[in-house]
Amino acid sequence: MLTLYYAPGACSMAAHIILEESGETYEPRKMDLAKGEQKTPEYMKIHPMGRVPALKLDDGECLTENTAILPYLGKRFNVWPADLKAEARAHSLIGFLAASVHPAHAHFNRPERYATDQAAFPAIKEQGLKSFHGYLKELDGKLAGKEWFSDKYSVLDPYGLVFYVWGVRRGLPMPELKNYTAFKDRMAKREAVGKVWEDEKVSI
Amino acid sequence: MLTLYYAPGACSMAAHIILEESGETYEPRKMDLAKGEQKTPEYMKIHPMGRVPALKLDDGECLTENTAILPYLGKRFNVWPADLKAEARAHSLIGFLAASVHPAHAHFNRPERYATDQAAFPAIKEQGLKSFHGYLKELDGKLAGKEWFSDKYSVLDPYGLVFYVWGVRRGLPMPELKNYTAFKDRMAKREAVGKVWEDEKVSI
Repeated sequence: MLTLYYAPGACSMAAHIILEESGETYEPRKMDLAKGEQKTPEYMKIHPMGRVPALKLDDGECLTENTAILPYLGKRFNVWPADLKAEARAHSLIGFLAASVHPAHAHFNRPERYATDQAAFPAIKEQGLKSFHGYLKELDGKLAGKEWFSDKYSVLDPYGLVFYVWGVRRGLPMPELKNYTAFKDRMAKREAVGKVWEDEKVSI
Repeated sequence: MLTLYYAPGACSMAAHIILEESGETYEPRKMDLAKGEQKTPEYMKIHPMGRVPALKLDDGECLTENTAILPYLGKRFNVWPADLKAEARAHSLIGFLAASVHPAHAHFNRPERYATDQAAFPAIKEQGLKSFHGYLKELDGKLAGKEWFSDKYSVLDPYGLVFYVWGVRRGLPMPELKNYTAFKDRMAKREAVGKVWEDEKVSI
């Protein structure tokens, strides 16, 4: 059985939705980041960086990084592009989300990761939010004329949804992003998304 | 035929080495980042973020992000783990390198990306270098008792090598990282690495 280590509202929401939609029984392990549960010696054995998500596989091995967890789940549950080129495009989008969009937001949310002097935090937060907003506009562009990020529904969609939720939380003018907002509305209608949002206390 | 858009010393070095080792004829397109070649309208059509690497495929489609380019090349040239779990581990390491190690270095190298006020730059550079050094130590740990990052030589190795080169350039005490240094020595003996280093003017 798979075990998902996740935290409410974190980027682990993508894997959470995919597992919920899979129909397979899994163990959800909710972490309380505010209490520092992700930094306990026990959890650091699972994820040496003390972050979520982590996915414990059937044999006890643990996977970290959305770049690995999402393709793994996608292949296991058949929500992953089949041919080599569509797959490469999916890895490209996951890389953009993981290495550019997510870190931009982290500069707003956790400036202490990025400077030794807290006098620098306001300038880091400001630039982080500006970069994050720019990336959300790019994601809006990628959805123009499309229902899902790939040709059909895939793990890219729950992952793309995470950053919409974060945009709302940061007070960005999300309704201006028409394609992305319509996509969010489609996602919100999915039963698993409703269930995960209830569990993770997401109301947008 | 594949075309690689790369810049000397950039993270495109990984794809450059893989292509050089593949034996397949490809077109290397060297970009001059100092001259801003990566921000020309022509190149922005290939890579909308104006970065390297980008890989133009046989049919003209362009791939961006190492998270996509490296697995694509790995599968094409048989330097990619075959089974689902080893593959997931490979995606995990690529994600760690692309989303944590590379951005940490960018904070040292390009602080202007991360703050609206240049008074913040010194604190960002200092923390960036500290985080980067910490990550290099983790990579050293991952290589303990191993010849390559995966069970056999794969695209992970040229990618892992990039950050060793950057560590040397930043003046970090790299010889202290015994496993990583022995790995670098193994890599340096490969003919393609020597050829790419000569072309990219890398001397470490």
